[in-house]
Amino acid sequence: MIDHTHDAAASTWVAGADAHEHFPVQNLPLGIFSPVDSTPRIGTAIGDWCLDLAALASLLPETTRSALAVPLLNALFALPPQERLALRHAIFALLTDASRRGEVEPHLHRAADCALHLPFQIGDYTDFYVGIHHATNIGRLFRPDNPLLPNYKHVPIGYHGRASSVRPSGTPLVRPKGQLKGPNDAAPRFTPSQRLDFELELGAWIAGENDLGASVPIGQAWDRIGGLCLLNDWSARDIQAWEYQPLGPFLAKNFLSSVSPWVITREALAPFHVPQPPRPEGDPAPLDYLTDEADQQCGALAVRLAVTLSTRSMRDAGLPPVTLSQGSATAMYWTLAQMVTHHTSNGCNLAPGDLLGTGTISGTTRGSEGSLMELSRGGTEPVTLPGGESRTFLEDGDELVLSATAEQPGYRAIGFGLCAGVVEPAR
Amino acid sequence: MIDHTHDAAASTWVAGADAHEHFPVQNLPLGIFSPVDSTPRIGTAIGDWCLDLAALASLLPETTRSALAVPLLNALFALPPQERLALRHAIFALLTDASRRGEVEPHLHRAADCALHLPFQIGDYTDFYVGIHHATNIGRLFRPDNPLLPNYKHVPIGYHGRASSVRPSGTPLVRPKGQLKGPNDAAPRFTPSQRLDFELELGAWIAGENDLGASVPIGQAWDRIGGLCLLNDWSARDIQAWEYQPLGPFLAKNFLSSVSPWVITREALAPFHVPQPPRPEGDPAPLDYLTDEADQQCGALAVRLAVTLSTRSMRDAGLPPVTLSQGSATAMYWTLAQMVTHHTSNGCNLAPGDLLGTGTISGTTRGSEGSLMELSRGGTEPVTLPGGESRTFLEDGDELVLSATAEQPGYRAIGFGLCAGVVEPAR
Repeated sequence: MIDHTHDAAASTWVAGADAHEHFPVQNLPLGIFSPVDSTPRIGTAIGDWCLDLAALASLLPETTRSALAVPLLNALFALPPQERLALRHAIFALLTDASRRGEVEPHLHRAADCALHLPFQIGDYTDFYVGIHHATNIGRLFRPDNPLLPNYKHVPIGYHGRASSVRPSGTPLVRPKGQLKGPNDAAPRFTPSQRLDFELELGAWIAGENDLGASVPIGQAWDRIGGLCLLNDWSARDIQAWEYQPLGPFLAKNFLSSVSPWVITREALAPFHVPQPPRPEGDPAPLDYLTDEADQQCGALAVRLAVTLSTRSMRDAGLPPVTLSQGSATAMYWTLAQMVTHHTSNGCNLAPGDLLGTGTISGTTRGSEGSLMELSRGGTEPVTLPGGESRTFLEDGDELVLSATAEQPGYRAIGFGLCAGVVEPAR
Repeated sequence: MIDHTHDAAASTWVAGADAHEHFPVQNLPLGIFSPVDSTPRIGTAIGDWCLDLAALASLLPETTRSALAVPLLNALFALPPQERLALRHAIFALLTDASRRGEVEPHLHRAADCALHLPFQIGDYTDFYVGIHHATNIGRLFRPDNPLLPNYKHVPIGYHGRASSVRPSGTPLVRPKGQLKGPNDAAPRFTPSQRLDFELELGAWIAGENDLGASVPIGQAWDRIGGLCLLNDWSARDIQAWEYQPLGPFLAKNFLSSVSPWVITREALAPFHVPQPPRPEGDPAPLDYLTDEADQQCGALAVRLAVTLSTRSMRDAGLPPVTLSQGSATAMYWTLAQMVTHHTSNGCNLAPGDLLGTGTISGTTRGSEGSLMELSRGGTEPVTLPGGESRTFLEDGDELVLSATAEQPGYRAIGFGLCAGVVEPAR
């Protein structure tokens, strides 16, 4: 799947796009946008512009045209992967051939003036827990000597999240109220969360469908990944601590989950596959149904991750956002293919537009933790910010931004766009 | 809401319906059915017949007509409750007035010849855990002295389930495979579940919508219950035991959840509201956000529940199904209104067609347990069946049927129809 559309020297006639941090012509993410005063439609991002693919459908592969007419990506991601590859090739040709500029340019809209929407009607949202350093950091807060539970290295642990409260980047986070019981509380109380946190995750958008009762073999699982996004799994740690036993997180998580709106396609990510890091000495091998040599060779992704924070005071003082955390998607203990195969191993059906979260991705070093719960050691060690403030958890007015970049030597880096949100006071 | 449509003496011209166990004219459930060789449409059940409401739309309230044209109930349950009450009145009038028989009768289809479908496109499915005797029975298997966790009597515990694998009654259950690790296993294995179970639950279909960030006060929560169904939350106990920590059940539950296809409407259930049983002496009072005097007075439902089993050998020998369990929906520690209010208390948005399960409803006596895990005491005490067989968990060929009846003195009892499924071998 690495072809001419990944040529680092490829250039587009769209002004400024070749130098764009996120969206050079080698990226061509898919999403849903609205131009000013107009209706949502399928588009791609090129530099600082949104290109209306619905309006250009007659220039694009016939097999994709009916799907391009709907302002959601579900139908497009119900098609086989080769149809989306053909679409990528066609868009790439239009944007790199200066002779097509006259036909295409009228359908470019300045991104700053466009609204970006959820790319899919989400059927189901599942959140995994494959960030082993996150699982270790969180586990250590509860069980210092034995942070990982016995199933962790055998089972790609996951659970169901709430699809209805997934929203695109920019949606404000209203501080949730909930039932909680602090260590000094004699009884639980209903109050705004005081331990509001982010979680840095990648999201995978499912393509294709398996029937209920049919599982997806590991060797075919990558075909079911339509593309990726950033995912902020906002969490209320105090609500979570009180509610989560025995059935897992519920209201601590389902008040909002934010995604970056552009789908970084499987096709765009082809050059960025890298070997899955070997398991540490002594770790068990995955069971057969989760084992595939090709997946071990190229099932991980060279994606750098970062989180920035700016408080209201910092913005008022003209201070730039501060980087809270920097990490890498290679810190996942299980691959995306293993997540898909495990999820369907009991016959569970996955459909186009389902969202799989990786779980929080943390590294092993200070400053690579993907949540404030970890950065502040369970709220005991405040993080110092420019301007003299500090944080253990999020305060009203804080703006959090996740970003990601896929990078490999010899290839043009591509960005994921941003996943941002500002904390608003409880209602 | 108790009006002439609940008159026990009301009679319909539809042959046999007045004596029907489930669907007399006082019930009028809503659902989606297909006549032989035809397409799905909205209907009601009357005796042994399905009435095509889409075809009769011109005789029904104008406010419901566009919703009746779609073969899903989502649009109808997006309307305010009074619109569905008006629809009930109109259907009742057509079926009780013999002078309308000529217009209506051509749109009756023999139920035995119809296919019944999922009534809604389900956005999200949430399963609660409000059957306190079930929670106690299961907890006792793990913690004999302290079966209920500290949060149970404060928090209506719930978690997210899988919407894509909810299916109507009659869908076969393919025995799931999964990762499990028995007490005598040195390492986990991937194998068909050997501890396959049912769970007897009620399901509540959500009506109306709250915006993300807006909660539903307890006094308004019952307006958000569109109607009820039976729900069998099939469970693989061996997969569950190995996977569920720390994030809750996942593949142990999401291979199939079966619902009875007719929606027993909020309007039909009006006569069957009863006081919520008082909490045992010493139990904490619910927090204010979950407290409402009217809900305490009439937030429970007088609904009898039953589960029958027939094995392949029993059917081959001509033996009738055996009743495994009989119970009552009044064994719920939290009301449906408390479930809705708690779910939205953090601003989580619920939409028409969302499904809330109650969790397994068990009673306090032997023979009232809503799962085989409880009936067989964790698999240690096999249940004896007619014909000499016994069961700890479900075997291939077993057919399980859930049923429910709403009953109150002075009112015509109404049934929920059945929720049935046969276990098929693993693939």
